[in-house]
Amino acid sequence: MRLSRYFLPVMKETPADAQIISHKLMLRAGMIRQTAAGIYAWLPLGLRVLRRIEKIIREEQARAGALELLMPTLQTADLWRESGRYDAYGPEMLRIKDRHNRELLYGPTNEEMITALIRDNLQSYRDLPRIFYHIQWKFRDEVRPRFGVMRGREFLMKDAYSFDIDETAGRHNYNRMFVAYLNSFSRLGLRAIPMQADTGPIGGDLSHEFIVLAPNGESDVFYHSNWEQPTRHIEADFDDPKALQSIVNDHISDYAATDEKRDPLREAQAGDKLRQSRGIEVGHIFFFGTKYSKPMGFTLPGPDGKPIPIQMGSYGIGISRLLGAIIEASHDDNGIIWPEAVAPYHVGLINLRIDDENCRAIADSLYQRLEAAGIDTLYDDRNERGGAKFATMDLIGLPWQVVIGPKGAEKGVVELKNRASGEKQTISVEDAFNLLTAGHQQR
Amino acid sequence: MRLSRYFLPVMKETPADAQIISHKLMLRAGMIRQTAAGIYAWLPLGLRVLRRIEKIIREEQARAGALELLMPTLQTADLWRESGRYDAYGPEMLRIKDRHNRELLYGPTNEEMITALIRDNLQSYRDLPRIFYHIQWKFRDEVRPRFGVMRGREFLMKDAYSFDIDETAGRHNYNRMFVAYLNSFSRLGLRAIPMQADTGPIGGDLSHEFIVLAPNGESDVFYHSNWEQPTRHIEADFDDPKALQSIVNDHISDYAATDEKRDPLREAQAGDKLRQSRGIEVGHIFFFGTKYSKPMGFTLPGPDGKPIPIQMGSYGIGISRLLGAIIEASHDDNGIIWPEAVAPYHVGLINLRIDDENCRAIADSLYQRLEAAGIDTLYDDRNERGGAKFATMDLIGLPWQVVIGPKGAEKGVVELKNRASGEKQTISVEDAFNLLTAGHQQR
Repeated sequence: MRLSRYFLPVMKETPADAQIISHKLMLRAGMIRQTAAGIYAWLPLGLRVLRRIEKIIREEQARAGALELLMPTLQTADLWRESGRYDAYGPEMLRIKDRHNRELLYGPTNEEMITALIRDNLQSYRDLPRIFYHIQWKFRDEVRPRFGVMRGREFLMKDAYSFDIDETAGRHNYNRMFVAYLNSFSRLGLRAIPMQADTGPIGGDLSHEFIVLAPNGESDVFYHSNWEQPTRHIEADFDDPKALQSIVNDHISDYAATDEKRDPLREAQAGDKLRQSRGIEVGHIFFFGTKYSKPMGFTLPGPDGKPIPIQMGSYGIGISRLLGAIIEASHDDNGIIWPEAVAPYHVGLINLRIDDENCRAIADSLYQRLEAAGIDTLYDDRNERGGAKFATMDLIGLPWQVVIGPKGAEKGVVELKNRASGEKQTISVEDAFNLLTAGHQQR
Repeated sequence: MRLSRYFLPVMKETPADAQIISHKLMLRAGMIRQTAAGIYAWLPLGLRVLRRIEKIIREEQARAGALELLMPTLQTADLWRESGRYDAYGPEMLRIKDRHNRELLYGPTNEEMITALIRDNLQSYRDLPRIFYHIQWKFRDEVRPRFGVMRGREFLMKDAYSFDIDETAGRHNYNRMFVAYLNSFSRLGLRAIPMQADTGPIGGDLSHEFIVLAPNGESDVFYHSNWEQPTRHIEADFDDPKALQSIVNDHISDYAATDEKRDPLREAQAGDKLRQSRGIEVGHIFFFGTKYSKPMGFTLPGPDGKPIPIQMGSYGIGISRLLGAIIEASHDDNGIIWPEAVAPYHVGLINLRIDDENCRAIADSLYQRLEAAGIDTLYDDRNERGGAKFATMDLIGLPWQVVIGPKGAEKGVVELKNRASGEKQTISVEDAFNLLTAGHQQR
């Protein structure tokens, strides 16, 4: 993409209303703009990151056997009366009346809707197990929306729901999502630690939060230093209950707890390996058995024809909030440092002198070759000062920068900079091209 | 995808509340379910088609130079007061109050929001021309929602907005979208005819509707028989105003008009070439100059520093409604006939006897090879009668069916059926594989 045709309204000044670094940087980098309290428009650069994250989440959901569908944003109040949650849910639920005075609401979550949908469309216990997920905008009418997309009102969430005929199978599906979450966050470049959690208004007695460590996190977390090891992708057979359970056990054996769930005994055992930090919740999974299926009358005839109440769980990932979490975990004084997997573009190409014939020829040609090779490239071909171009590229945090200036252009060399390490090297155009394309899988 | 692990709740009976064929077939084929009046959940099969359509629309928007962003579903009433439309808009606008009693609304369209967003983030006339689009859920509180996704309340729309410093440039952007629409609909397997249109509440004096011919269409249309020729993809240079204008002229030279816009003179000229049909509106484009920029104070400093009021247009495609339109245009008594470009899967693979070793070996192997070759395949590996399997495959309308039965399996042959033509051939497994993969571009 040529920057001269793009829409990247970067800001030099830090916006006054932004308190945390991810919010500041998303505004400054031209990724989002607030359109109402806690409601944001996603500008082209921000949307690209959102889509990259969605794609990774989808792939890992599919790998775990979850089926994608899409439920609407608006729901009927009557549906929530079936579960008893309509009156129980507080003022965070946005309640709406349509032109016929029928009560609707903007869905904050979808347990009721998916329960009704699957209840009305399955015939037999043989249709289970199943996990369904969707990625849809939700609304929670936060009393004080803040921190940008970290605590917005309209937010994008992946929520999955599992359906099983008994607790053992239900636990297997829970573990499927547990492992899918480990892999999803790892691919996003995040170390997310699963921690035992309270279940709150969702219900049930088995639940884990996935928490990313970050200085600006919303809660205190305590963990064993083993959690500081880098993550790796887990090759799991999702249809093997024992293997999955053992992976899950491995990942809850090292101590990690939020403030509410601290265990003095285990902390004493950890000794000087105990660490404290702040954390951001990026995922939350629940197994709640028949909490929704019972009141909503969802049973399926079992092998003997007798109705079996269905065991359910739900599994959320805050997708829009993940952008904030990733930036909190990966930035420096100059701006964002995107992990490769979610970077909006792989390469930022800077032509320092657009009026220089040599520079333009090299830059144009390299841009076209990179794009043809499937390398997403943002090409700064604008008539701007070099300083502004450097600052913009650092701010938006693409993994690689290629700088083409008149002196180098004469010799056929460019400067290649790695955004994360800051390392620069002056190399031939050909070497730069080879380095940028080597081992790069087209996304 | 193995059907034994999928979610495809097909219905044998035609649902009583569905009046038109597309609505009936989408329900029967397990693509959608209504969750409230005019509000639908998209089941896995329906969602896949929706995504295919989105992808084609995106590609053609990008080709025409439009930039994707994403605006939220909820907007403030104050924003619509800036343009004067808040009070003018009727009861189809869903008006909402949040917990602080602030007035919100569920966006039925986004002229106001995009105008404010771009106004607040551009500096100079040099930042134009631009076209922005997003694909987002909208809400119109129809008094009598009906015809399934054709006239729903919560619906998915692609809406684009153009920004220019003068009418000539504005007209160029209008033509960009005009040609992008011709190509989009053509790729979707639709003959959509552009017809001069009234502008209604959007405003302006230049407008075209894109209308698909279908017996169940909502309006009468009249057109020259030249429009019955097949469409072809137009290779256009979108940066060449003259070339684009000439393409547009070519496409408005043959007579075509809705009931409100009939021209007796041109109909007389058409003589026995005049055709009449019903039509479904799938796209609508508008050029309305300064209708929004003026009241909302969107000007940019021109070359002489004086403020120039910005010329705008807007360009909509009803994406969820397109599924209905495609089915109305492409079905038979047995079900849907998907055009290749939007088919949820390319091949339906039927194993007639899952307890037959031979059948299963051939079916499993062919399924794996097709998937590995990038051919999306829906594999009916369920323990069901053959008749039910045939009926399901015809109903959901995948372009190709491969049937593996015990007699053929002994000889290593399968039956290959083309859903559109109904042609069947008995061929070797190898020939079937080659035929299905030949020339198929991975989507």
